[in-house]
Order: sequence, then structure tokens, then C-alpha cells
Amino acid sequence: MIDPRVASGLRDIPPSAMIPRERALASFRKTFADFGFVPIETPHIERMEVLTGKGAGSDEVLRQIYSVTNKGGEPGELALRFDLTVPLARFVAKNINELGKPFKRYAIGSVFRGERPAKGRFREFVQCDFDAVGTTSPIADAETAQVIHSALATIGVPAFTITLNNRKILDGMLGLHGLADRTGPILRALDKLAKIGREGVRKELEGGQDEGGAPGAGLTEAQAATVLDFVETGRGGVEVLALAESTLGAVPSAAEGIANLRIIFDLLDASGVPASRLKIDLGLARGLDYYTGVVYETTVDGWEKFGSVASGGRYDNLTRLFTDQPLPGVGASIGLDRLLALLEEAGWAKGPSTTVPVLLPNFPGAEPRHVVALASRLRAAGVGAEVYPDAIQAGKQLQYGSTRGHRLAVIVGPAEQEAQTFNLRDLITREERKAIPWADLEAIVLAALDPSKGDAR
Amino acid sequence: MIDPRVASGLRDIPPSAMIPRERALASFRKTFADFGFVPIETPHIERMEVLTGKGAGSDEVLRQIYSVTNKGGEPGELALRFDLTVPLARFVAKNINELGKPFKRYAIGSVFRGERPAKGRFREFVQCDFDAVGTTSPIADAETAQVIHSALATIGVPAFTITLNNRKILDGMLGLHGLADRTGPILRALDKLAKIGREGVRKELEGGQDEGGAPGAGLTEAQAATVLDFVETGRGGVEVLALAESTLGAVPSAAEGIANLRIIFDLLDASGVPASRLKIDLGLARGLDYYTGVVYETTVDGWEKFGSVASGGRYDNLTRLFTDQPLPGVGASIGLDRLLALLEEAGWAKGPSTTVPVLLPNFPGAEPRHVVALASRLRAAGVGAEVYPDAIQAGKQLQYGSTRGHRLAVIVGPAEQEAQTFNLRDLITREERKAIPWADLEAIVLAALDPSKGDAR
Repeated sequence: MIDPRVASGLRDIPPSAMIPRERALASFRKTFADFGFVPIETPHIERMEVLTGKGAGSDEVLRQIYSVTNKGGEPGELALRFDLTVPLARFVAKNINELGKPFKRYAIGSVFRGERPAKGRFREFVQCDFDAVGTTSPIADAETAQVIHSALATIGVPAFTITLNNRKILDGMLGLHGLADRTGPILRALDKLAKIGREGVRKELEGGQDEGGAPGAGLTEAQAATVLDFVETGRGGVEVLALAESTLGAVPSAAEGIANLRIIFDLLDASGVPASRLKIDLGLARGLDYYTGVVYETTVDGWEKFGSVASGGRYDNLTRLFTDQPLPGVGASIGLDRLLALLEEAGWAKGPSTTVPVLLPNFPGAEPRHVVALASRLRAAGVGAEVYPDAIQAGKQLQYGSTRGHRLAVIVGPAEQEAQTFNLRDLITREERKAIPWADLEAIVLAALDPSKGDAR
Repeated sequence: MIDPRVASGLRDIPPSAMIPRERALASFRKTFADFGFVPIETPHIERMEVLTGKGAGSDEVLRQIYSVTNKGGEPGELALRFDLTVPLARFVAKNINELGKPFKRYAIGSVFRGERPAKGRFREFVQCDFDAVGTTSPIADAETAQVIHSALATIGVPAFTITLNNRKILDGMLGLHGLADRTGPILRALDKLAKIGREGVRKELEGGQDEGGAPGAGLTEAQAATVLDFVETGRGGVEVLALAESTLGAVPSAAEGIANLRIIFDLLDASGVPASRLKIDLGLARGLDYYTGVVYETTVDGWEKFGSVASGGRYDNLTRLFTDQPLPGVGASIGLDRLLALLEEAGWAKGPSTTVPVLLPNFPGAEPRHVVALASRLRAAGVGAEVYPDAIQAGKQLQYGSTRGHRLAVIVGPAEQEAQTFNLRDLITREERKAIPWADLEAIVLAALDPSKGDAR
């Protein structure tokens, strides 16, 4: 006998978790599509060279790559993708002439990273990415936040905050203070502000190297204080931009970043995204080298400890590894697994372990063809219906429905079969209405499922 | 620069192919769910032992396995799944006590086989599987055909044939003629009947070994003729069963198979599957060792050369590799890639390369916030809407919509902005209605998209 366990760091997703997951995915697909993003799919397996090309991923991600070999193949030639951005870049570079601009695509799929297994961290997880490539328009910038807003609102997250910044403002501030050459270590330290607090970040900013041993920022006490003050006062609503303008308005790149955020806020207002969902954080950097304009992070109110559930930003050149044609774009990724873990912990993902509201027992002594026919009629009327296959004791069949969360049972025993009627049992209240004619099936079931509609006789 | 090509035998799926693909998948998910099948997901990566356990796959499939390694892992420990049945067996064996019976699951996902690349054959392809495990009921047998019927009818396949057999009938016939010990080679030969014809199969049945060098059936000329006659006269509607009964009614296993098919036909009739979609073929075997009861194949009428697009059957013991508890079941797999290739070649999958019907150009000289607001209103009314991001020449923006298949453009130039109106351009007929007030947006657009509904002023 073979041990039926999954490999370390991987997992099965059972029906109770898959049902809300599929609901979320269907909702994301609809949101992306409603904004004109079109789907693409790329293989899970890529050529190793494509994934490890300089700049494709951080060193840490590259150490986590799974290589793939089959008989007749050279080891080291193929690997599993670790994100959906590198495959997008390859796809766009390859098809650039046919695609036209803008190319707005979404992609949903598993990615693989051989991370050390930990609670809630898996070696295979799903990313939901959308990007508008080939445009520098702030309409596309704003649309990124609109899509995040629609996607989260639609799946029932009650309150969340989309935090925005524009990398150009931070760059301008550092340039003004002569710190442009230390941007890398400064941003690395600032990224930890929420985690280690002002005092911890101050130490890193002033240190000669960070905790991982990389070169530190080596700032003076005064420089560190300037940076930290800027970042800490740079959080709030759109009014934060006036403050930034007063100190950085004369720095061209910062002024560009501030103007961009103003337009984005105006467009988000026009589109109906509530101002209460938006926040500016002038210290938000998100990744060191990749993003060049607006950046986004999204946290669920009260559940900030889960980190960002939807993040992204604008980049200058998606396809630099593959072609000389520079292609700017903007996009974001929704972290499905993190979001669902949060929804579950918050109790917002509760639901039945069945996909259908109606169970039809196969009543001992009755002919199954009648319930099979009634079930078909229900499905044709848009109501999912499951026939219990085995003619075991009726009580056990009803128990199956109660445990899984079916709401109604349509029961045809031998007497009902004779009379061409059914009994309708509410599996939650256990009430049962008897002797309803088969002819009334759809009307009665629809009314029982939604008393506001249908025939409620 | 890195060459942006995909690895040999793999492919990208562009939007024009992905849009009908997602439509088909959404429709399959809904069909499976409407019958009470619940979704599960298992990792793409399995432990090698699980995949290569005796009986898990044919030798040919095992030769095609992709092994997977990451830093710190032992080579040969992990592999990519080659189907969704072995992972189902592992999942069920592991969770058998919590799942309860019947366990009706569906799963949709990529599987990987390092086959020799050929036209229309890829090393990664998608399977759509549904199975009812833990039941021997003919209701579950019939439901398998019901689901295939609903799935294909819903995605718009105009005419198709589900071919049924029960393996017990064939086994009974071979037993009656003393050929039970040669079942393997006989079925292997019969499986080729459509491909190489009666004469070719006769040669194989009489030969000492088959073309692959495996032991042949070694039948006499008379035995081969008996087998071939039985199979060739055993094709047609439910009346074929009467014929089989007259020759095999006294053979217990054959009688059981015949009775099972009779019940299935009765239940399919009750469920509303048209008899014209069903055919019996007493020679249909489908795989040698796995299936033990009813078997299914499905071809699209007029497109039989594509082979079966949905196949399956009943098996005695799904989990034998992992546990001593025998678990019977019945299920089938829809071959998404084959089906979509067929739909495309038949011209039944034609559609736009956009997911939205309405384009809103970003008209040069107008303020984008107005079209952004109008687009949000359309989405809230259930109409997908895309704002063109860059304020390039309006003609080029409309061209973008015409090429991709947007049906309508909602145009707000500087004059319309002033008057708070829009022009509605039909991108197919090129007709344009001018000066419609913004207040009328939803009513007018809904009516234009579907003249049978909404306000058609």
C-alpha cells in the first residue's frame, strides 16, 4: 500500500474550501472581463532560461525554482513558473506585433516556489494578475485601483483600504536630500516600518549594513529623521499631496508623481470608488527595482496582519529581457490564497459544502425514474438538484443533505409516486409540506428558495 | 536578449482562444455543480511514488512522466500529475472517513505528459473530470451520460452521440466462447476497429502477436469471425439489447450488463436526454483493466475523426493502491482541448476577441473623468465597458474596438462634454446616433445591445 499523503509544502483543497474559492475566482474573472481585460494562459512549464534571465526574479525566488525533466530531456532545461509576470513578458515580447496596444490581459493560475513550508504558506499557490501593457495613461493607473475595488467588494469583503503612492515622489525626496545613491537600502529599511517600528528602521537607516548583511544606508541621525518624518507625515487622504507639494513641488520627478496621484484620485472619484477606501502613504515602495510610478497595496480593515491582499503598480519596461522595444504598463495581482485564508478566519466565507440547494432522495420502494425526471425539471428551471443514488434508508439520505447544507428535499415515496405528488422538506427547519402535485414542482421550489419570488401559495 | 519562445510541445493560449475556452469551462463548472458534484483541487506536483505505483497508469504514461526537483530535494521524489484520477484516488483514500458516501467530485486542471509533440497534441493539457465514488447505483451510471449531455448541449455542440456499452456483456460473450483468458489482446485489437477496419482487426485477432510485439489473441478464423460478427451487429439503439439477450441471456455476467444498460436507458429517457443522442456499441471496451461496468464514449456528429471528446465508465475499486477499503465509482472526463479544437475547426467557437460589448474612447480634448464615470455606470448596469486609456486620434481608438469586436462605442468629445451628451456608434454597421443625454445612458445602451429588451426609443 502506498501512503496517500501529499508532498511537503503542498495541499489538497477540499470541497468546503473550494466552493468559496470558485465563487471568488468566477467573480474576479467577471470583474476583469467587465473592464475589458482579456484572458490568456501560458504553460506551467517554461524554459529555464526565460525564468532565470537577469532581472526576471529576485535571487531568493530563483533559489526556489522547481526544475522539471522528462525522459529524453536535459536536466536544467525546464522549470515551473514562479509568477505570472515573467510569462506575460515573454508572451507579449513574442506576440507584440499582433497584439496591438493597449494589451489588457488577465491570467489566473498556479505558481510554484520551493519555500520553507510554514503555516499558511504553500509551495504551490494561485495568482490572479491583470495588467494593461503598452500605455502610460493615468486612466490605466486609476483603473488598476477600480478593479481591485470591484473585485474585493463583489466577493463580500466588508471594508478594505487601497493604499497608493507614486515612486517618483519618494525618489524626488531622496534626490533633494542628496540620498539618491542610497535609494536601495533606504527603501528596504522603510518597507519594514509596519513590522519593526520607527526605532528599528532608524537603526537600519543609520547602520552600515542591514540585518541580512547587505550594505546599509549609512545615514546621519538628521538624515534618518528627515526621511522618517517625511514618511510618517505622508500618510492620509488626498490632502497629503498638498503637504508634499509644499516641500517637493520644485523637484520635477516628485511634482510629476504628485500630479499623477491627483489625476488618479480625480478619476477614482468619477468612477465611484469611495474616498474612504483610499489612502496615500508616501513611504510605500513595494519592491526595489521594478515599479517606477504609482504603486498599490490593499489591506482588509481590521485584518492588516494578513498583509496586502492585492498589490501592484506601474513599470517602465515589461519586456526588457526579450526585446529592445520598451513596453510600459501597469497592473496588480490579487493573492487568492491569502485572501481566502483571511475570509475563512473572519468567518466571511461560510457556506454549504454542496453546490445545489435541492436533494431528491431515492426513496426505498419507489421507482427512481420519477425523481430523476423531477431533478431534470428543476435544473432546467435554473435550480441545482442532486439525486441520491442509493436506495438506502430515507433518514440516512436526508442526513446526507443536512450535513452538506442542502436546503430542501423533494421526497417521492411509494405513496407519493402513486398519487403523482411530492413532499417538500425544509432541511433547516425540518418542516415538511405534503402532497404537492408534480405539476407545481418548479413554482413551489422556487418560492421556497426565495420567498420574494415565485409562487408562494 | 532571451528568445521568448515556449518549450517544445507546450503553447500559449491567446485571448481569441481563451475567451471561448473560459466560456466552456464556466459552463462545465455550472453543469457539474447543478448535479451536485463538488469541486476539489489537488496539487500539480505529487510524490513520484503515488504516480508510479503499480496500476496507477499504463507503462506508456509512466514513461512520459515529468519529474520535479528543487534545491534541497532529492531527484526522483516528485513529479507532475499525468491525470486527475490518480490524485482523486489518493485524496479519497486519505479522507475517506470524513468524506462520506457518495462522494461526487469534479476537478478541472492541467495534466502533463512528455509525449512526442504532434499537431494538436500538447505536453500540457486540461482535463475536466467528474466522478461519483462510493456508489454502485445505476442512477450514478445514468447521471454520467446526463452530465455529458448537458455539458455539450450547453456549450453549443449542435449534434453528438454518446456511445454506451457494459464491459460485462463483452466479458460474458468471450467467456461463453472459452476466450476469457485472451480478453486483453482481443480488446486491444477491437479498440482499433474504427481505425484499421474489420480485415485489419481480423489479422490481429488471429495473429500470435500484435503490431507492438505484445502477445496476440491467436484466435482461429471461426473464433475471430464470431467475435467480429458479435461486435458488428451489436451497434444501434436500445433494440440491440434484445439481440444480445437472445444469445447471452443465460450468461450471468452478460445478463447483468444488459439489465444495467436497460435501466440506464430508462433513466436517461426519464431525465429528458433524447434517444437520438444515445447509441449502444457492444464492442466498445475503453481501456483494458480499469473499467468493469458501463463505459461511455462521445463523438460529435460529422466530426468523428476527432475521436471521443468525453469518455468514462464504471470501475470497481478506485483506491486499491492506497487502502484496503474497496471503493467503486463511475465517472468521465471531458477532453477540453480536443473539444475546443473541434469547435474552432467547425466554426462554432467564433466570437469577439474582447470580453466587453462597449468601448468608450478617451476623446482628445475631452476630460477623461466623464467617460470613466459613464463606464462605471454601465458596469453597474451589468454591461461590460472598456475605456480606451490613451487620448490618441479618435479614429484609431474606434479602430481598436472594431478589430477586437466591441459592438458599440459611447463617444464623448469636447462638444458632447459641454452639452452633457454622448454619441452612440454601432461599430458593426457604423451608424451613429448623436446627442443622447447622459441620463439615458443605461436604457439606450441596453436597448441597442438587445432590442428585445430595454428602452428602444
